[in-house]
Amino acid sequence: MTNQYVDIENLKYLLFEVHEIENLLKKERFDAYDKTAIDIFIDSIKTFSDKSLFPYIKDMDENPSYFKDGKIIIHPQFKNILKSAGEMGIVGSIYDFDDGGLQLPSSIFHAAYFIMEAANNHVPGYFGLTAGSANLILSFGSQFLKDTYVPKMLDLTWGGTMCLTEPQAGSSLSDVATEAVPTQEDYFLIKGQKIFISAADHQFSDNFVHLVLARIKGAPSGIKGVSLFVVPKNRPSENGKLVYNSAAIVGEFEKMGQKGYCTTHIVFGDNDDCRGWLVGEKNKGLSYMFQMMNEARIATGRMGAAIASAAYYASLQYANERPQGRKLNSSGQKNTDEEQTLIINHPDIKRMLFSQKAIIEGSLSLIFETAIYLDKEMTSASPEEKEKYNLLLELLTPVAKTYPAEQGIKSTSLAVQILGGYGYCFDFMPQQYYRDVRIIALYEGTTGIQSLDLLGRKVPMKNGKAIALLAAEMQSAINEANTHNTLKPYAQILLENLDLVQKVINHLMPYAIKGNHERYLADATVFMDFFGTIVIGWQWLKIAVNAEKNLKENNQKQTKEFYASKIHTMKFFFNYEITKTKGLAKTLLNNEELTIHTFENIF
Amino acid sequence: MTNQYVDIENLKYLLFEVHEIENLLKKERFDAYDKTAIDIFIDSIKTFSDKSLFPYIKDMDENPSYFKDGKIIIHPQFKNILKSAGEMGIVGSIYDFDDGGLQLPSSIFHAAYFIMEAANNHVPGYFGLTAGSANLILSFGSQFLKDTYVPKMLDLTWGGTMCLTEPQAGSSLSDVATEAVPTQEDYFLIKGQKIFISAADHQFSDNFVHLVLARIKGAPSGIKGVSLFVVPKNRPSENGKLVYNSAAIVGEFEKMGQKGYCTTHIVFGDNDDCRGWLVGEKNKGLSYMFQMMNEARIATGRMGAAIASAAYYASLQYANERPQGRKLNSSGQKNTDEEQTLIINHPDIKRMLFSQKAIIEGSLSLIFETAIYLDKEMTSASPEEKEKYNLLLELLTPVAKTYPAEQGIKSTSLAVQILGGYGYCFDFMPQQYYRDVRIIALYEGTTGIQSLDLLGRKVPMKNGKAIALLAAEMQSAINEANTHNTLKPYAQILLENLDLVQKVINHLMPYAIKGNHERYLADATVFMDFFGTIVIGWQWLKIAVNAEKNLKENNQKQTKEFYASKIHTMKFFFNYEITKTKGLAKTLLNNEELTIHTFENIF
Repeated sequence: MTNQYVDIENLKYLLFEVHEIENLLKKERFDAYDKTAIDIFIDSIKTFSDKSLFPYIKDMDENPSYFKDGKIIIHPQFKNILKSAGEMGIVGSIYDFDDGGLQLPSSIFHAAYFIMEAANNHVPGYFGLTAGSANLILSFGSQFLKDTYVPKMLDLTWGGTMCLTEPQAGSSLSDVATEAVPTQEDYFLIKGQKIFISAADHQFSDNFVHLVLARIKGAPSGIKGVSLFVVPKNRPSENGKLVYNSAAIVGEFEKMGQKGYCTTHIVFGDNDDCRGWLVGEKNKGLSYMFQMMNEARIATGRMGAAIASAAYYASLQYANERPQGRKLNSSGQKNTDEEQTLIINHPDIKRMLFSQKAIIEGSLSLIFETAIYLDKEMTSASPEEKEKYNLLLELLTPVAKTYPAEQGIKSTSLAVQILGGYGYCFDFMPQQYYRDVRIIALYEGTTGIQSLDLLGRKVPMKNGKAIALLAAEMQSAINEANTHNTLKPYAQILLENLDLVQKVINHLMPYAIKGNHERYLADATVFMDFFGTIVIGWQWLKIAVNAEKNLKENNQKQTKEFYASKIHTMKFFFNYEITKTKGLAKTLLNNEELTIHTFENIF
Repeated sequence: MTNQYVDIENLKYLLFEVHEIENLLKKERFDAYDKTAIDIFIDSIKTFSDKSLFPYIKDMDENPSYFKDGKIIIHPQFKNILKSAGEMGIVGSIYDFDDGGLQLPSSIFHAAYFIMEAANNHVPGYFGLTAGSANLILSFGSQFLKDTYVPKMLDLTWGGTMCLTEPQAGSSLSDVATEAVPTQEDYFLIKGQKIFISAADHQFSDNFVHLVLARIKGAPSGIKGVSLFVVPKNRPSENGKLVYNSAAIVGEFEKMGQKGYCTTHIVFGDNDDCRGWLVGEKNKGLSYMFQMMNEARIATGRMGAAIASAAYYASLQYANERPQGRKLNSSGQKNTDEEQTLIINHPDIKRMLFSQKAIIEGSLSLIFETAIYLDKEMTSASPEEKEKYNLLLELLTPVAKTYPAEQGIKSTSLAVQILGGYGYCFDFMPQQYYRDVRIIALYEGTTGIQSLDLLGRKVPMKNGKAIALLAAEMQSAINEANTHNTLKPYAQILLENLDLVQKVINHLMPYAIKGNHERYLADATVFMDFFGTIVIGWQWLKIAVNAEKNLKENNQKQTKEFYASKIHTMKFFFNYEITKTKGLAKTLLNNEELTIHTFENIF
């Protein structure tokens, strides 16, 4: 158990048993793989993570990336990491074979990244961003862009970044001001600056391919005038040599966590000769970017769950090794002549461990559920099926981002708490995970932004069709659970919660219909907390149904204890977590509009 | 508003108006002070904090205390700070005039520390621990100990520490193993080691007076065999010179926050000549220590609220200055030709600000309430009154420690969130406060320990008399609120919650009576969350009653907006926070015993 950061057995259980990934492998797109091949792939990722990632996480925190003389210097171990990851084909894991990829299901891609991020959350972003930007080029770019950039990105010789945020705009992408001026040639001249650019321009890649949102001169204001460009750091010239393209790193943001993962400030076009190549059609940049951003949002949630997983195992190890205190006897006294007990024997410690376990495994299951919707959408036989999975994917994406982000904070905080004072000290890992995980609720759209997306766009989408589809999925888990007497009470609780969701939506929707969008969305973040908890409850019920069935059928793929642990943790989630939804609904149903009707100097 | 970290106006409002501190000043013990004198004292603390504390908080984080060559080096500014604080008499603020103190009420002492801690939470512990240890000597020590140590501690020439925790024991004080061997002289020989010793042995004090829990050779096991000793770093010898007493700093714990406040590891008696002088009677050390620890617990909660206050104002300033996004129009669209709006105009930002404000001001009000119980206990005319205030103080102490600790984490996290990505970066303060505040739930007894104290000791104390007294206090606030139509709905909610507390206790108590203490206490931390939220609801109702009365009476001590803001924030607390108590009660009322009945390898 020493230095465990992820439970591979559980991960495979969720994939193969709960989410029945083998059905997916029967689809033509994925039929190069069977269970054994997937097992081997996952195991190779675990070996890579054990050897090349996990041993360096503490050192990356202690020796952060830094900016010096116009350059970003990242931890020396990245040299080996990038080389190995390039060789393993991680960047192209979900790309078509024809594009040089491994053509794996998205769910397997997320499984692999989950393992790597649990091992060392400072690392996989370097692959992930390169994968995301190459994927943008593959999906929407010209053949010229594909040929010029993708092959070198696939093996990580070149890195890729996503350049969205600007200093004056933050989350407000309508206000992107970076300028693209058309020329007589095939390129535009780019000028502007971007902040919070992760994974950019370090010493271990020869070149960087920035995917930049910019506004073509004269384009409409707002998001309708935003286009997407490939802006390399160095552009290939006619003689094949690389020419500097005026994409200058001017600084790094020093962060309280995830210090090995650099966050940069880039200035484009200081010399008025920064060239950018349009990706796809003009003024459609945001819709292209959003396609990737949806993936990135699931990925961000996954990273939150992965960090929480690592913190959980650090605290579990401590709880299993640390003697302290004694059990109370029947007169409420402790017998101090007895040896101290291990702290894992105290109910309060078990509560903190169950709470972490419920959050992490529930989140991972949701990540898989969501990713599988994408896999199913891609491989659907009919347009109806395609739409169904697309809607479910759209609806759950902000939840898959936010639940692990917000609850990951709580979960790692519990890991700190289990270690007591040691949890706060640099000698132990929980304090680092606690700092690392705090970024997750900010990356790729803050919790507030995700919540507006959920309630403002996804819930009303196609007249509530996505919500109706999700309700049907939940109902089917409830029906299955009702076939097992022991699970009936929990099925009933989920059913009540499903009704409560409808009640809350019925209460809020009239505001949207009447055009009072501010009122409709005022408590979007509370709605996210409410809805997300219920969604995870659904995941736990699914898991428990599977475990109960396996127990009854005496299926011995896992031990009885393994299945019993799943059912026990489901019960914990229903007794300790889902209990909060009624209070949140009360907040959502109240009519005082306290965050709308305020006055100056109220704070 | 720039660089505001505390609202002095609100602090004085709580003291003078809500908690009517002037009644206390009529008591003989405090009659040297009137409102003007208290105003002047508080203002002088604010001036000191503005000049000497707040400007250094960031630098103390960036240049932490460290251990080198057997010594702890703290930030150079401490030289000035300790000198000024010594001159101001902060250490002895609540001591009797006869002992060289200022004889201020405890509530005013907490007000002063709250301001200093909001300005710079790395600092006041150096005064507070010296004050606490000198107070132990004053309360229980011999005249020799008082004369030898206290005067130099009062002016901070010497520092004081509390040495409780040992590596093998952690929170379990029954397992203290530091040994005290009697000699023919007036001293014992001390041998052992202590960890997590704050504020010890830095370069700016000539000597340190450690108050050490140790076990006299042959003493009973458990807490009944623990005695308290004064163990100086250097002991005064007959010729008046200081002789090294073998109290060696062997290391510092590097922490993720509060880095200016050193946390040391001390080894006593490596040379077999470390002398300790017994304080009070032998084997009574823990009861003495607990008297101070109760004060220290309130102080720790106060520090949590103070850090959250500083984070709140940092985020409020940002929200008032940062333009981003736009209001939605009636078709749910944004007009991107309009200028961006300040983020404070977004309901979700207001929600995060109200949430912080409700937590911080509610916590501060509880700190004052609790401290005033101590002041009233000290100045009670009758034994009945004394007992009443003592019981209320005992009951609320773990709550006053824990609510600000746990909710302070949430509150500072919201401050981070308001700043978006900037909140996570070293250029802004919220990330530091977020790291700093995390220690509060660990110091002076973790949340788990406080919760066992609340449910295990305080609730059953004197057959529930403390709870009954608190219920009467709450009922009186409810009755007052019921005289204002606008407050009736909230009074009703508090009443329902009061009933719910009784219901939960009635459900749990039979387990304790039957001797099943493990079951009784299994969810003590959930009970703390439940009970603490209701207690803060009571504080907010009290505040609102006062504000409503002042509004009706057209009292112009404060602006109408000030009073309206209090009522608005109370409503926020009742609509967004107290709504969670029913869910917590559901957890407490459930009978599945999931954290008790587990099996091996369940995690």
